[in-house]
Amino acid sequence: MPKQVDHHQRRHEIAGALWRVVADRGVAAVSLRSVAAEAGVSMGLVQHYFGTKHQMVGFAMDTVAERVAQRHAAEVAHLPQPPAPRAAVRALLVQFVPTDQARRQEGHTLLGLLIGGPPDDPLAGRLRDGMRELREVVAGQIAEAGIAPDPETATTVLLGLTDGLAVHVIGGYLTPAAALAALDVHLDSVFGPAPDAVP
Amino acid sequence: MPKQVDHHQRRHEIAGALWRVVADRGVAAVSLRSVAAEAGVSMGLVQHYFGTKHQMVGFAMDTVAERVAQRHAAEVAHLPQPPAPRAAVRALLVQFVPTDQARRQEGHTLLGLLIGGPPDDPLAGRLRDGMRELREVVAGQIAEAGIAPDPETATTVLLGLTDGLAVHVIGGYLTPAAALAALDVHLDSVFGPAPDAVP
Repeated sequence: MPKQVDHHQRRHEIAGALWRVVADRGVAAVSLRSVAAEAGVSMGLVQHYFGTKHQMVGFAMDTVAERVAQRHAAEVAHLPQPPAPRAAVRALLVQFVPTDQARRQEGHTLLGLLIGGPPDDPLAGRLRDGMRELREVVAGQIAEAGIAPDPETATTVLLGLTDGLAVHVIGGYLTPAAALAALDVHLDSVFGPAPDAVP
Repeated sequence: MPKQVDHHQRRHEIAGALWRVVADRGVAAVSLRSVAAEAGVSMGLVQHYFGTKHQMVGFAMDTVAERVAQRHAAEVAHLPQPPAPRAAVRALLVQFVPTDQARRQEGHTLLGLLIGGPPDDPLAGRLRDGMRELREVVAGQIAEAGIAPDPETATTVLLGLTDGLAVHVIGGYLTPAAALAALDVHLDSVFGPAPDAVP
């Protein structure tokens, strides 16, 4: 006898189960069946909420994107308005440096997805779409600041650096503080020092 | 009735099986049993060659380190002697950019190990040792060139960038050529342009 449930919450629970499957067993293990088992519900219920694996995956990616967007908005709210390009880019990139448990889990699963997933997996495809959006924002800020002769390559370096630092923190090879320090040194070399570094 | 076998070759075959287990099922799946099954030999035979999981893992890491060292030596042999710091660092870092099938497989497994392995796994521990050696060489070259106020942080950025670019190539998000171009732009910003860029 199904009770009345909070549909919104149920969808989020299922998305959480999907991320646990990815974290524990890799992206190849994601299916309506495995996610249902992880969530402790029937496969029919998962299908009721999502229809297809593709839709389930899309929702799970959206939940992470939302969390990142919320943290980013909170960070930007503390900046002088409008934020300078360096501060705007930093507020975005620090969302992907594993400085707390939430970012660590996200990094673990998103990076595991990039590395471990078959390139034609819908989850990997969605992730690449997200990275393209991120790239546009960062390249736009670099172009606006007019500080790099080639904003596209400067963006490739910045995004590569951010994910590489995340790998090294997750691998236990760098502390979060050392990763942030390295990111800041590099941001200084791209944008010049942060204004609040010269009080 | 065991035939006379090439012990050296047999050890390398077992190491190859270990890397396939890591690539397919993650570092948590590595055991004398799983590697024996993957290699199509008995667990007793694996124990005969390696004794313990720890020793097997050590040998498997050594085989990758050897391959990297061989490619690196071949690359350095083409440089003016002694190589300039920028060229020396580049010759080392390009070993980790997945520009061919061998580097792609290595990157896939080594990065999967850094991200997916429990930090107390002997494989992850060995990998961190290798990264520390790499860091010493790169930081030494940067210090020798006298071009960065803080060689340690400059090294953190360079190694982070290299692994992040590798993640983005493996994830199908960057081409190998774009990754190398980004690495070169960053090396230029650290060391100044390559001498052969000004013929």
